Amino acid sequence: MNINQQALKLHEENRGKIEISLKAEIANKEDLSLAYTPGVAEPCRVIAEHEEAVYKYTNKGNLVAVVTDGTAVLGLGDLGPLGAYPVMEGKAALFKAFANVDAIPICLNTTDPKEIVKTVVNIAPTFGGINLEDIASPRCFEIEQRLSEILDIPVFHDDQHGTAVVVLAALINALKLVKKEIAAVKVVINGVGAAGGAVAKLLLSAGVAEMVLVGVNGIMFPGDSRNNPLQEELAQIVNKQMQQGSLAEALENADVFIGVSKGNLVNAEMVSKMNEQAIIFAMANPIPEIYPEEAVKGGAYIVGTGRSDFANQINNVLVFPGIFRGALDVGATKITEGMKIAAAKAIAEIITDEELSPDYIIPDPFDKRVASKVAEAVAREAIQSDNVRR
Amino acid sequence: MNINQQALKLHEENRGKIEISLKAEIANKEDLSLAYTPGVAEPCRVIAEHEEAVYKYTNKGNLVAVVTDGTAVLGLGDLGPLGAYPVMEGKAALFKAFANVDAIPICLNTTDPKEIVKTVVNIAPTFGGINLEDIASPRCFEIEQRLSEILDIPVFHDDQHGTAVVVLAALINALKLVKKEIAAVKVVINGVGAAGGAVAKLLLSAGVAEMVLVGVNGIMFPGDSRNNPLQEELAQIVNKQMQQGSLAEALENADVFIGVSKGNLVNAEMVSKMNEQAIIFAMANPIPEIYPEEAVKGGAYIVGTGRSDFANQINNVLVFPGIFRGALDVGATKITEGMKIAAAKAIAEIITDEELSPDYIIPDPFDKRVASKVAEAVAREAIQSDNVRR
Repeated sequence: MNINQQALKLHEENRGKIEISLKAEIANKEDLSLAYTPGVAEPCRVIAEHEEAVYKYTNKGNLVAVVTDGTAVLGLGDLGPLGAYPVMEGKAALFKAFANVDAIPICLNTTDPKEIVKTVVNIAPTFGGINLEDIASPRCFEIEQRLSEILDIPVFHDDQHGTAVVVLAALINALKLVKKEIAAVKVVINGVGAAGGAVAKLLLSAGVAEMVLVGVNGIMFPGDSRNNPLQEELAQIVNKQMQQGSLAEALENADVFIGVSKGNLVNAEMVSKMNEQAIIFAMANPIPEIYPEEAVKGGAYIVGTGRSDFANQINNVLVFPGIFRGALDVGATKITEGMKIAAAKAIAEIITDEELSPDYIIPDPFDKRVASKVAEAVAREAIQSDNVRR
Repeated sequence: MNINQQALKLHEENRGKIEISLKAEIANKEDLSLAYTPGVAEPCRVIAEHEEAVYKYTNKGNLVAVVTDGTAVLGLGDLGPLGAYPVMEGKAALFKAFANVDAIPICLNTTDPKEIVKTVVNIAPTFGGINLEDIASPRCFEIEQRLSEILDIPVFHDDQHGTAVVVLAALINALKLVKKEIAAVKVVINGVGAAGGAVAKLLLSAGVAEMVLVGVNGIMFPGDSRNNPLQEELAQIVNKQMQQGSLAEALENADVFIGVSKGNLVNAEMVSKMNEQAIIFAMANPIPEIYPEEAVKGGAYIVGTGRSDFANQINNVLVFPGIFRGALDVGATKITEGMKIAAAKAIAEIITDEELSPDYIIPDPFDKRVASKVAEAVAREAIQSDNVRR
């Protein structure tokens, strides 16, 4: 059986990947009278008087909705809410497996941003956090922003920020290895969609000073009518000098290439024009912008991809479980830039200076230390910035 | 500790009553590649092509939303969506404990019927069924009706129909014991709200011919301006002769009293005016319309209440787990009158003729046979009436 057949078999045998289980048995009349009537009336009364008590007496504070409209499922495009369901269940399974966060899919029957916002706001009392997933750009920005403004629970679009955080973590360690300062490197980001845009913003927050953004039309510059609002906003920040040109030209004298675009866009020749000890994160899936072997041939010193069969898998499973774990643990009301940077640093710090090598800049997805370290760092930052409930 | 303190302690120690668990471990890269990327893409693709496959490859078909707006929580009234949360989690726990149905609370931030309908429709792709709970009358009728019309999954307002089914089950056995035919008895229903109205409708479907409905203003009659639409509709059916009078007058020569109202409205004197071998279901909680001892003093032959500390507890935990189990098992698209009657008969049949006695007309809530017998009967009826998906 190939992997597709194996995956179908696993999904069919178990009818999906998650289920509900009881925290305490209900086996006799006494159990029933405590978990349900008449005993249940007492926590209800207490919560009705002091809403905050819902976090004490129910699972709300550990329950995350994995919300999608099914419009951008993996790299497969618009599969609809049902087509997205296995991914959402998978995400929920990872939340539980990696950080003991209870999460459930919410697959939506609408793709209208206003309607999505209203629906999520309406069901929000149920949840301690909202993880947006596989919602197409640019609607995902508006939805995340509105929800973050309205709700008092964390809202996190993983496709954007999970990717941004893990890229920053990998970059911190890669730069440590090549002994370059983040403020002194030239970074090229190819593909400014949801993920690429979030990577750009977080790297700017983290101190990158020289950044070149590249899209299908080459280097992005302000005022180009082909820019979408996000691209225009970012181009105004990073390209005041109105540089124009191709991806190949962008890569000349660059220190870092970050690809969140499509396979096979970069070759060894292009890499050879980059600065010494070039860092390449080629994260297109399943085919990277450049394969590691080819990148090394062009002189790259460190190469990461999105794939598990090469060294340095830059995978956001390192991020979202710990981010939510930390945010939920302290009752954070938002996921801030500061929390994301704290998460990235925590991931990077897992690897000691002695362990650090060009083939090991980012922890393995199954490194058990990651989620708890990320959670601690995120929780600390939330408390320090007073971003917690009452 | 009294029961309230015990209940608080239990809820606090466990932080609620349900959690998510994994159907299969995710412990290594291979697990990850099957449950999540890249393997998960295959069930997504299959479902996108054939929507029905979502029932094969995900848990949708076993997942029920327990939906509330928190406006009629137990007997406590409008506690809001957070105040309702412990009840919804309790209900979800019972679904799992009694029938292996996975259920989750959906506590809504709106009490507007149109908004509730829209929200539930928007999240419906996630679920195999919708259980409405603790939504105030009369809004609950409109919401249930609209959702049933729009959705292709079962929608069931348990406060109405769960109560109706368990009352019918108890009545079937009580009548068997007193050797009266359902078409020949006079039934008085006191309290025509959500539950009482549903009881009235189901008993009419099941063959009751003589029914008197009583409210706070006495016997309900058509054209009374104090009737709400449901009460008017029912009064037109059962009181063409325009009978008027008090509850005491209604009870004269009645065979069955069904109370879904308030405590202490009936006394022994009133019961003594009923026919021989009177049947009393006094289900107000926690104080019944009449206590069993008092009812027997008045000459009642069979008494049931909503309480676990008297014989014949008429509890809808006998109903909803099996109803949903059966409906989900065969992919029923609605819960029909036929399925409810089938459920009531299945509950009644658990008790053999030899076992049947005035103190044992309805199975114990923990009788393990109930949910599976109800599920079988409901599934059979759904199939026979061709009420199943494609």
